[in-house]
Amino acid sequence: METWLTEKFGLSVPVAGAPMANVSGGNLTGAISAAGGLGMLGAGSAVSAEWIRTEGAVAAATGRPYGIGLMAWSMANRPEHLEAVLELRPALVSLSFGDYSQYVETLQAAGIVVATQAGTVADAREAIAAGVDVIVARGAEAGGHGRNAIATLPLLQAILDLTELPVLAAGGISGPRGLAAVLAAGAAGAWIGTAFLTCAEALTPEPIRRRLLEADETDTVYGTVFDAASRAGWPDEFGGRALRNPFYDRWEGHESALKSDDAAHEEYLTAVRAADSTASSLYAGQGVGALTTQPTAAEALATFATYTTYLQAAQP
Amino acid sequence: METWLTEKFGLSVPVAGAPMANVSGGNLTGAISAAGGLGMLGAGSAVSAEWIRTEGAVAAATGRPYGIGLMAWSMANRPEHLEAVLELRPALVSLSFGDYSQYVETLQAAGIVVATQAGTVADAREAIAAGVDVIVARGAEAGGHGRNAIATLPLLQAILDLTELPVLAAGGISGPRGLAAVLAAGAAGAWIGTAFLTCAEALTPEPIRRRLLEADETDTVYGTVFDAASRAGWPDEFGGRALRNPFYDRWEGHESALKSDDAAHEEYLTAVRAADSTASSLYAGQGVGALTTQPTAAEALATFATYTTYLQAAQP
Repeated sequence: METWLTEKFGLSVPVAGAPMANVSGGNLTGAISAAGGLGMLGAGSAVSAEWIRTEGAVAAATGRPYGIGLMAWSMANRPEHLEAVLELRPALVSLSFGDYSQYVETLQAAGIVVATQAGTVADAREAIAAGVDVIVARGAEAGGHGRNAIATLPLLQAILDLTELPVLAAGGISGPRGLAAVLAAGAAGAWIGTAFLTCAEALTPEPIRRRLLEADETDTVYGTVFDAASRAGWPDEFGGRALRNPFYDRWEGHESALKSDDAAHEEYLTAVRAADSTASSLYAGQGVGALTTQPTAAEALATFATYTTYLQAAQP
Repeated sequence: METWLTEKFGLSVPVAGAPMANVSGGNLTGAISAAGGLGMLGAGSAVSAEWIRTEGAVAAATGRPYGIGLMAWSMANRPEHLEAVLELRPALVSLSFGDYSQYVETLQAAGIVVATQAGTVADAREAIAAGVDVIVARGAEAGGHGRNAIATLPLLQAILDLTELPVLAAGGISGPRGLAAVLAAGAAGAWIGTAFLTCAEALTPEPIRRRLLEADETDTVYGTVFDAASRAGWPDEFGGRALRNPFYDRWEGHESALKSDDAAHEEYLTAVRAADSTASSLYAGQGVGALTTQPTAAEALATFATYTTYLQAAQP
C-alpha cells in the first residue's frame, strides 16, 4: 500500500527503523534502507561528530534514503552533531526530547524532512506549531526514551484526529498485525525499534541479545534509573523503557541518591562497556515478547511486509 | 464487515459494550444492543440479585442479544449473582478477575457464550486452558479494573499470535480509527467502555459526566486507592484506571493506611452517593480525551460504524 512515507522516500514497506543509540549504526540503518524501509541512525549524546559522519557514510553507501535521530537536549551542547548531519544531508532527521523548534528551519532549508516524536496531544500541538513535516505518535509501550503518558492506540487516534500532517505510529508494533492496525487507523507508517534490536546488523552485544530473546512482554519497566546512573544528561521528563535487571531493582525509587553516587556511576559504565546485562541498560519496548530470533534486517522487514494479508482479510 | 462477534450475535457493528458497574445498567445495555452492538450489563459486587434480574429484563426487552459481566473474586461470596444470571440466560457472560474456571462449564451448559479478560499472555493461556469461548485482550490503557501490565496494541498482537480463539480488543479504542485498527490486526471486534461513559442512557451521574467531558488523555491514573477506600474486596493485583482527583492525590502511596481508615472509608462512600467528583472514583481509560459530547448509545455506535471508511482507505 502507498502512504506518505512510502511515496516520500520510495519505500516498499511503510516502516521506519527507530534511531536507537548503541543499536542503529550505519550497518543496521543501511540494511533497513536497502531492504525497502527507512533506516535511521541513532546518534547518542556521547558519540563524536566523526562517528556520525562515518556511520552515516555507511548508511548512505546503499544509495537509498535514510534518516538520523538527534536529541534536542543534547544538541545545545553538541553543535558539531548538527553540523555533521547537515553535511550528510540524510533524507529525514528526527528532532525530539527538548526544545527542537529552533533547528527545524535550518534542516528543512537543507532539503531534509523533519520529524519529531510526540508522547501526548500537547506535544503534537507543539510539533505542528514548530512546523515539522511529520509527527511520530510515540506510545508509552515503546522502548527507550520518551514519555510514559499514553499508549500508542489512543495517542495515535487523538493525533490523527488533530492534524492533517502525516503521522507515524511508534510503540508496541511488534509484527505485521500491528503494522496493519496502525495503517488502518490512518497512520502513514510505523516507526519500529524493538523488532530490530536483535537483527544481525544491530550493534546490540551478544549477552544483551540473549536477555532480549528470553524476555516476555511483561518484563519491561519505565523510569530514570539508568539515566541517573549514566549522567548522560537526559531530562527527567523523558525516562526510558527497558528490561528489569538487578541494577534497576536495586536503585528503583532511589534515583536522586543514584545521581550523586560515584561508585554506582562507575559500576554502570563498566557494565555497559562489558555488556553485562545485570547492570547495563537493556532498552526495549513491550513488543519484546515477540522477539524470538536474530533475523537479518531484510528478513525482519519481510515479516512486516506481510501486513497486507491482514488488511486484505479485514475488508468491509 | 463480518467477524466472529457479528456472526455469533447478529450484530451490525463489531462492538461489545464493556460491562461497567454503576454505568451499564439495563438502559445502556439495551440501547447498545438495540443499535446493533452487544450491550453488557455491569453487575458490581454490591448489587443485589434482584438488581441483576430487573436490569437484565430491561436489556432483554429489546429482543436483541446482550451480555453480563461478573467478577470471579465476588462470585464466591455471591452465589445468587450466578443464579440470577443463569435464570436470565444472556447471550454472553464475561467472567474475569480471579478464579473463574470453575464457572465456565455451568454457563456453557446453559447455552451461554463465555468470555474472559486477559491482561497478559499468561492470562490468555489460562483462559484457553479454562475453555472459554472468546478472549478479551484488555490493554493497560483501559478504564476501570484490570492489570496495568501491557498496552492494547502489543497485547492484542501477542494473543492473536497465540490462539485460534476469537479475540476482542479492549483499551484505548476511542473511535472508529481504533476499531479499524484492531479489526485489521485480526480482532473479532472491540470491547468498548470509556466511549459509552457519557451516553444519555448511562447511569453516570451529572457531576461525573462534566469531569469526564473536561478530561484530557493524560488525566488518568492507575492504582488501588479507590479500592482501598471502598472495601469492596478487589484483589490488589487488579487495580483501576480512573481520573485523578483530590482524594486520589491525597491517598496515593498510602493505600495500606487507607484500608483501615474508617473516616476515609465513610468520606469515600458519601462522595460516591453524592456523585462528588473530588472524592468519588471516576473510572475512565486513556481514550477519555476523545469524550466531548453526550450522545445516545445509537449515535455513539453510529460513529464507530464509520470504521469501514478507514479500512477501505487502507487497501493494499
